[in-house]
Amino acid sequence: MFEFRLQAQCPVTGARAGEFVTPHGVIKTPVFMPVGTQATVKAMAPFELEEIGAQIILSNTYHLYLRPGADIVEEAGGLHSFMDWHHPILTDSGGFQVFSLATLNRVTDEGVECQSHIDGSRHMMDPEWSMEVQQKLGSDIAMCFDQCLHYPTTKEEAETALARTTRWARRSKDAHTREDQALFGIIQGSVYEDLRRRSAEDITSIGFPGYGIGGLSVGEPHHIMYEMLDVLQHVMPFDKPRYLMGVGHPSNLVEGVARGVDMFDCVLPTRNGRTGTVFVSTGRINIKNQVYARDFTPLDPSCDCYVCRHFTKAYIRHLYKAGEILAARLCSWHNLHFLIKLMEGVRESILNGTFPAFRKNFIEVFHGEGDSVENESL
Amino acid sequence: MFEFRLQAQCPVTGARAGEFVTPHGVIKTPVFMPVGTQATVKAMAPFELEEIGAQIILSNTYHLYLRPGADIVEEAGGLHSFMDWHHPILTDSGGFQVFSLATLNRVTDEGVECQSHIDGSRHMMDPEWSMEVQQKLGSDIAMCFDQCLHYPTTKEEAETALARTTRWARRSKDAHTREDQALFGIIQGSVYEDLRRRSAEDITSIGFPGYGIGGLSVGEPHHIMYEMLDVLQHVMPFDKPRYLMGVGHPSNLVEGVARGVDMFDCVLPTRNGRTGTVFVSTGRINIKNQVYARDFTPLDPSCDCYVCRHFTKAYIRHLYKAGEILAARLCSWHNLHFLIKLMEGVRESILNGTFPAFRKNFIEVFHGEGDSVENESL
Ligand SMILES: [Zn+2]
Ligand SMILES: [Zn+2]
Repeated sequence: MFEFRLQAQCPVTGARAGEFVTPHGVIKTPVFMPVGTQATVKAMAPFELEEIGAQIILSNTYHLYLRPGADIVEEAGGLHSFMDWHHPILTDSGGFQVFSLATLNRVTDEGVECQSHIDGSRHMMDPEWSMEVQQKLGSDIAMCFDQCLHYPTTKEEAETALARTTRWARRSKDAHTREDQALFGIIQGSVYEDLRRRSAEDITSIGFPGYGIGGLSVGEPHHIMYEMLDVLQHVMPFDKPRYLMGVGHPSNLVEGVARGVDMFDCVLPTRNGRTGTVFVSTGRINIKNQVYARDFTPLDPSCDCYVCRHFTKAYIRHLYKAGEILAARLCSWHNLHFLIKLMEGVRESILNGTFPAFRKNFIEVFHGEGDSVENESL
Repeated sequence: MFEFRLQAQCPVTGARAGEFVTPHGVIKTPVFMPVGTQATVKAMAPFELEEIGAQIILSNTYHLYLRPGADIVEEAGGLHSFMDWHHPILTDSGGFQVFSLATLNRVTDEGVECQSHIDGSRHMMDPEWSMEVQQKLGSDIAMCFDQCLHYPTTKEEAETALARTTRWARRSKDAHTREDQALFGIIQGSVYEDLRRRSAEDITSIGFPGYGIGGLSVGEPHHIMYEMLDVLQHVMPFDKPRYLMGVGHPSNLVEGVARGVDMFDCVLPTRNGRTGTVFVSTGRINIKNQVYARDFTPLDPSCDCYVCRHFTKAYIRHLYKAGEILAARLCSWHNLHFLIKLMEGVRESILNGTFPAFRKNFIEVFHGEGDSVENESL
């Protein structure tokens, strides 16, 4: 269980193709994971995620703990049964949401005393809480409880959070007993090279079947994120999957893969979908634009998804202007399909040794590096 | 084209089973038509409507004229292409919405000067306008422009509207030229038996391939609606389809069929779906109810729709409480499936001569006659 098989590596870049074995199936990497924050990938049904080739989805421990509650999910037979998704699931630790959504009352080495963003109820969230909840949810991959900082942050703050994250990783591992669930460590260290190295050493010395890279895509420029990945790819274990948390811009995915990343997640494709921003092979468009009112071509003429085979820009624009739910459905569907097919193309190119050309071509054709937005796994 | 074949009639009641031939397929009656007000059945995709067995959908002339505009739909190749629904479509005349949604400036025999409920823009809506728009939309069945009154209304008002509706029906027929589109007349007369008779005589003497019954389910008690149907079933032509407009409560469907109605439409299943009200074989439930928090059974254990085969009440309740789009999707899906299967069962029972038993059993099992709500085709 939880074996990571490295199948190919790009001779020029750090790009890797592999397989990660989980109780609910084998994940072919590199992989993009759609986010189902509240036990549903927004606007999508499970059979649609299967149709577009989603292999694994992510769900949020903090949200599910507050609503409907981990006990209800457990009684339902776990998250897979509850949401009718019978392929792999990764749950985050709740750490990121605790520090970004909840009202923090007291943060100590012990844990976080905070209040729900929904109803103000008081909770103590710590590594043991996170492990208990994630084990009840029954995801295939759980994450260690960590402290994630925003950007910018002082080196002193970063160092404190790093040390705390390491202690919490040990406590997470101690509290984690489910053998049918892999527990991944998380590397922090903000934008400081030496801290990133230290965190990688600390966390990998504890030993996990996979590693998350946290605290990136939280507002820093992309070149700094890439610098951190350049450092990390040489210090992270070669034989374990590497998961860059909260990153989903197409360019960032390709550049992340080039730096040895195997897994990504982001709410971007569905959030953009709900606001009418659509990925196309040449960049991004907003379907609400007047220029599409009489455009009877698909969102992306080179896309073969259900949406592009059946609907026109003019129709989807109309749905948006009219406030129809189907607008969010169709754009989320196409955007997820775009990222999943992008990762399939990336993987294929790694396997047949043409990733550098794939990367070069992608960067030439797809314009826009992506906004330097806050980490979107909220 | 537009042939109505009567296949069976109940020997006890007025229930009929038939087939209506249109350019986009044969409609087996009695039939419930889901409403796609703005060229989309809210929260549903076309392939899902096919999966639940929808034969024909309704769309709204007034809404589509205002947004995106009839010209855009025409340029798209008509409404079927525009919304990717390649089965029959019925468009209403716009009359009902003009009188209920728009700001009326002046109503004369000529037509209605009114202002858009969206942006206040001024429009002249009359029979010629309605025919022009519906012919651009290219529906299989168009409706005559009529004046619909709410309940209660004086007999004098009802008589005036009736006479106007007859004059407008002649103008509608004169302005209608598309041979691949059937134009149905509409019978008005409020809740006055003699006026209903007179309207039926007036409209059927003009002659149409089918007839709508308008101005019912606009707030009157159900027994009055049934009385009007009792009158009409003996004066409406036997060999043409009869369409009771804006009615969608399960009990009203069964009782309407018993009085010779062949076609129904209503926004109820999708509107209820979005607010969490769900039809089940024994009546209606609201999924938001606390009692379902740990109910891991389907919405309706006797239902075989996708929703009931895959999801539990506890999960769908969670989706509602969390404000997720999938909640509206799943409940709309199940509700539409419920009404379509109900009509399939009704038809089957007429064909094999057991409709009276079917009706009796349904009324015993399904509790609640339905709220006496306003006509819901808004
Ligand atoms: Zn597409
Ligand atoms: Zn069902």
